[in-house]
Amino acid sequence: MKADGEQYSQVMKARAFDIEANRMVCLLNLIDAIELGVFPLDRVELTNLGNSRKIVTVIDITKTMLGENEVGIFKEVAEKLLLKEGKKVRVRPVEKPESLGFIKRKLEGETLSESEIKAIVRDIGDNKLSEVEVAAFVVGVYIHGYNLEETAAMTKALTEDGKQLKLEKGPVLDKHCIGGTNGRTTMVVVPIIAAAGYYIPKTSSRSITSAAGTADVMEVLANVCLPLSDIKKITEKVGGVIAWGGALDLAPVDDEIIRVEHPFSLDPVGQIIASVMAKKASVGSKYVVVDLPVGPNVKIKTRDKAEGMAKKIIQVGKKLGIKVE
Amino acid sequence: MKADGEQYSQVMKARAFDIEANRMVCLLNLIDAIELGVFPLDRVELTNLGNSRKIVTVIDITKTMLGENEVGIFKEVAEKLLLKEGKKVRVRPVEKPESLGFIKRKLEGETLSESEIKAIVRDIGDNKLSEVEVAAFVVGVYIHGYNLEETAAMTKALTEDGKQLKLEKGPVLDKHCIGGTNGRTTMVVVPIIAAAGYYIPKTSSRSITSAAGTADVMEVLANVCLPLSDIKKITEKVGGVIAWGGALDLAPVDDEIIRVEHPFSLDPVGQIIASVMAKKASVGSKYVVVDLPVGPNVKIKTRDKAEGMAKKIIQVGKKLGIKVE
Repeated sequence: MKADGEQYSQVMKARAFDIEANRMVCLLNLIDAIELGVFPLDRVELTNLGNSRKIVTVIDITKTMLGENEVGIFKEVAEKLLLKEGKKVRVRPVEKPESLGFIKRKLEGETLSESEIKAIVRDIGDNKLSEVEVAAFVVGVYIHGYNLEETAAMTKALTEDGKQLKLEKGPVLDKHCIGGTNGRTTMVVVPIIAAAGYYIPKTSSRSITSAAGTADVMEVLANVCLPLSDIKKITEKVGGVIAWGGALDLAPVDDEIIRVEHPFSLDPVGQIIASVMAKKASVGSKYVVVDLPVGPNVKIKTRDKAEGMAKKIIQVGKKLGIKVE
Repeated sequence: MKADGEQYSQVMKARAFDIEANRMVCLLNLIDAIELGVFPLDRVELTNLGNSRKIVTVIDITKTMLGENEVGIFKEVAEKLLLKEGKKVRVRPVEKPESLGFIKRKLEGETLSESEIKAIVRDIGDNKLSEVEVAAFVVGVYIHGYNLEETAAMTKALTEDGKQLKLEKGPVLDKHCIGGTNGRTTMVVVPIIAAAGYYIPKTSSRSITSAAGTADVMEVLANVCLPLSDIKKITEKVGGVIAWGGALDLAPVDDEIIRVEHPFSLDPVGQIIASVMAKKASVGSKYVVVDLPVGPNVKIKTRDKAEGMAKKIIQVGKKLGIKVE
């Protein structure tokens, strides 16, 4: 055990467990847990001493499945840390992050500053906030809403936290549909924009509720699992591409927030706008057309609501240097 | 595999894992998970075919740590099911519960009926709602509050969901302090009430934030880890007892809700009242004195707030047949 700043940490030997938990979890021996002062569901930071990769996980505890000074690594954690059986890992308890206080302020109905929103997004991205804490934030936003500044700040924070595509050529155009209809406009729009001499590196999703998403349809014709470097190369060469956006790490915290919203189909207007605009900003779009279908069976029920939302999207675009129509 | 109503289920062999997760988790082989149509973090109901005990757990998935038709049982699950290595377990996917819709209605600021609140409490108790879903409910209550009927309904639901102490003698008196001060009145009040010929089966907590809770202090003098049957016997014989309330399963869902409130110290007034009154109702109290300390360093900051809260507690008591002062 050694002091690391104010906190103790321990160097342990990794033992790989073939367990997929869909969340970051590691297993500690009870004796080590007591020494570190952590309980089940508390969080620790793991550092792979071979490559300095870090990650925050929750902990499970065992008395017999690990020896002392061994840390059990579940599958997702091993992948993130590029960690092999028997290698050395530093284990350090994580303090409650400051962003918890900002989330509490949102629950109270207060307005958050740009730096507060940035801190929340960073802590979600770093896995420092538990699912319960992220859920509380999302519900707070759902009930109290965002003002224009908060929406723009959330968009920026989501964009900057993820990877970004930077094309050498331009201008970059994009289009987005808020959804609820079964259109297939991307397949038509992308070649038209490219043929007109503009650039459109389009990322699309696979099926969520419908039978097939745009990425699924495009996959019939070509490989859609492209890394960012290929998307850049192809777009710069031929003007456009249709790729699957799921594994590109563009605004990944947005996906985390959507995952928490999912059980209740929560869709606070401000968060939808930030989500859409962050994905656009992540690929460097300067001109974006947003389609807002209106009707009793789609997300937006009335013309009034659509017009209100359109106005807000245009205003957020302005703040980010993106022209939206 | 066999059809069970509308849903498939599988009978599997239990393999015990010495892992403590502080939540109900089981491990499935990937092939079985696909056959059952479940993903990591989905929920399944496990039934111990030896004793018919049931429990809902989330799932982790493995390719190699289990054979087909084996289910990995973590520690808390094995304890709840009284399940031994190698025994047979029925595994059945769980549908999203109806109470999700009631929680969504609370988020919208609507008022919930008694049966809706009961359904939410039952599903929390049965582990059918995820932590994210419970968190959303708690935040909804924090922001929108409860009216008097909802508070009384929550109190009843919490009480009826847990175990209850039924004394043959009476009347049962109790006292409660909302907290924030370091009093030690229980140690004095219980013998006085008992000496006066009344009955007071007092359950107390261990330390939460202070150095010692009433149960910790009492433990210096006598064993406080008493089962309900002993609490009943002792109270009926000598009029009073001071026991640790933590493992008695009185209003257990209340503890679950408090656990979710914890990271933000959320304390919606209606939920506090339901929490306090449910513990009183669970031991059969008919007359209760509630102490509401007021001051800048305790939970309730102003005299006005204390008076408002006192009025509500008295009204909720009336609805439950408990006289409160």
